[in-house]
Amino acid sequence: MTTLLLSTGWHQDEWLANWRATAPDRPILRHGQDDYDPAAIDYVLTWKPPAGVLRTLPNLKAVFNLGAGVDGLMADPDLPPVPLVRLVDDDMTYRMGEWVILQVLTHFRQALAYLDVQRKHEWREFEQPAANAARVGLMGYGTLARHCAPILLSLGFTVHGWSRSQRPSDITLYYGAEGLDAFLKRTDILVCLLPLTEDTRGILDAGLIARLGGESPLGPVLINAGRGGLQTEADILAALRSGALKGASLDVFNEEPLPADDPMWDAPNLVITPHVAAVSDPTSTLRNIVRQIEAFERGEPLRNVVDTIRGY
Amino acid sequence: MTTLLLSTGWHQDEWLANWRATAPDRPILRHGQDDYDPAAIDYVLTWKPPAGVLRTLPNLKAVFNLGAGVDGLMADPDLPPVPLVRLVDDDMTYRMGEWVILQVLTHFRQALAYLDVQRKHEWREFEQPAANAARVGLMGYGTLARHCAPILLSLGFTVHGWSRSQRPSDITLYYGAEGLDAFLKRTDILVCLLPLTEDTRGILDAGLIARLGGESPLGPVLINAGRGGLQTEADILAALRSGALKGASLDVFNEEPLPADDPMWDAPNLVITPHVAAVSDPTSTLRNIVRQIEAFERGEPLRNVVDTIRGY
Ligand SMILES: NC(=O)c1ccc[n+]([C@@H]2O[C@H](COP(=O)([O-])OP(=O)(O)OC[C@H]3O[C@@H](n4cnc5c(N)ncnc54)[C@H](OP(=O)(O)O)[C@@H]3O)[C@@H](O)[C@H]2O)c1
Ligand SMILES: NC(=O)c1ccc[n+]([C@@H]2O[C@H](COP(=O)([O-])OP(=O)(O)OC[C@H]3O[C@@H](n4cnc5c(N)ncnc54)[C@H](OP(=O)(O)O)[C@@H]3O)[C@@H](O)[C@H]2O)c1
Repeated sequence: MTTLLLSTGWHQDEWLANWRATAPDRPILRHGQDDYDPAAIDYVLTWKPPAGVLRTLPNLKAVFNLGAGVDGLMADPDLPPVPLVRLVDDDMTYRMGEWVILQVLTHFRQALAYLDVQRKHEWREFEQPAANAARVGLMGYGTLARHCAPILLSLGFTVHGWSRSQRPSDITLYYGAEGLDAFLKRTDILVCLLPLTEDTRGILDAGLIARLGGESPLGPVLINAGRGGLQTEADILAALRSGALKGASLDVFNEEPLPADDPMWDAPNLVITPHVAAVSDPTSTLRNIVRQIEAFERGEPLRNVVDTIRGY
Repeated sequence: MTTLLLSTGWHQDEWLANWRATAPDRPILRHGQDDYDPAAIDYVLTWKPPAGVLRTLPNLKAVFNLGAGVDGLMADPDLPPVPLVRLVDDDMTYRMGEWVILQVLTHFRQALAYLDVQRKHEWREFEQPAANAARVGLMGYGTLARHCAPILLSLGFTVHGWSRSQRPSDITLYYGAEGLDAFLKRTDILVCLLPLTEDTRGILDAGLIARLGGESPLGPVLINAGRGGLQTEADILAALRSGALKGASLDVFNEEPLPADDPMWDAPNLVITPHVAAVSDPTSTLRNIVRQIEAFERGEPLRNVVDTIRGY
């Protein structure tokens, strides 16, 4: 049962060393570095695979994506008809929770403004509503957003969500294109945790920003840790400059790394983090994947299989 | 049933207007501005009362402190033998929760370092452990800390507390002078929510910082929203400069406002906020106090009465 590591860039050696520590009995080979017989490959671990390679593996049984978002994998136009499994891992989910809560509170508690007056040695108080006056809208209500919701509620925020399909939920959930307007209208702080698909590409643009409620004096605020392709950066920049957005936090960009001369770096009230909101920890990720492989080999169904029609 | 507003400074007019809106049938007078007969005063609303005045009111029934900390009230050496009631109000508790969680995550997620590289247009990733690798110690485990604990737990942090007396608790709780060392040793991020009393004055000093565990690569971190009198600022400054503390957040200072030429303003990895962690909202506070007065007049016992021997 041989596994192939098929990734472009992305700390190959660290993943390899971790695999060997986690599954010493399971041989692993690296595409592009080791010679291998395509027919000998049973599983692939991948991150942004080069297009077409997966199709060349005739005995492939399953593909495991090394991150939660599969847009890099879906970009391969010639995917094999085997289960494509995305990463759902507590370690990553919790890290995303930390990042989201930090960004919501940074804007809500005016941390950038306080750092600013601190730099000027000014003891100055800003008017501050309580959390129950602010409505956080979780755009995409999947694994990550569902972890954030109860924490936001316990902080006192009002929380609602938006998903593709109708589903039971503890919070008010809007869904589909027809629910988007009502969702945005009651959102002061928008937290986007959508996957990047054909349906969601470019969704965070000037039109969407204009539809945000932002009745709270501190809103609207836009927070995106989904994918850069979801956002039109020029629109966000313009909205921050005009005040149509009071603040934003972006962990992801259309071009990563964000070029040093990009005007986004200096946008007012923008927090930039370099795609680190929820980094896959190799040890935790590979333990998770090896457990899935073992279950699969016992005949159990794989979990978190991507729906290639939906694209996530 | 007449109430006296006895405060030095602190937005007197706003409190007065709010009282009139909350309890239009209950007359209120301002010490220092209105003429009044001391014998006619039944209740006092106070914040840092001028010493000795409370003693001059022969028919006083109860004193209501307009904030959670009663150190300003306890500073009056001649207190009358009536119940002194401190403020325990959900609005304030939740605000403190927001502030504490923001500060813990700011340091834990290296937000100041990321803002720094953002200013330099640098896309740079820092090594980041997950929350379950960091141990938050809540110093003082009263109303405010008890609200923070489950939120920190749901973020993934390990949480323990320290109080004066032994009491049942969901988290590991150390208590008293004999428990302090064990508490500090296992603390990476110290959150101080103690009241200022004779026993706690100056407790946050170089000696305490040296006893902090801080095994996590990001610790130790010191966060104080209790009172400035709990801390020795020179020691905190030295520890931040030497790296003995990796970061700190202070909402309170020995002298407030912090003078513009104080070296604390520029201490490395220090977040300063101007005593705004949990500001009493007048509407919410006075509703709370009027409810207490009404219950008291029905013969029910007052809640949150200060123990003047303990000093909180
Ligand atoms: N920045 C980082 O470090 C980082 C780390 C991890 C993940 N991510 C990103 O976060 C994304 C979300 O991860 P997750 O694990 O929470 O994914 P998930 O469990 O698949 O949840 C996706 C959510 O988005 C909703 N959705 C998808 N397409 C939609 C559409 N067209 N309209 C409305 N709702 C739509 C889904 O609706 P249904 O519930 O109806 O299916 C679901 O609620 C990933 O795809 C990845 O891009 C980023
Ligand atoms: N910065 C702000 O905006 C702001 C706002 C509100 C409050 N505060 C401050 O926060 C403080 C705490 O408020 P709270 O409502 O949580 O108070 P609380 O409910 O009275 O809790 C105080 C806690 O401190 C512990 N404690 C007191 N003296 C101690 C000692 N000598 N050794 C060990 N533990 C000791 C108590 O132990 P026991 O449980 O054994 O009694 C209790 O757990 C207030 O006093 C105030 O100074 C600041």
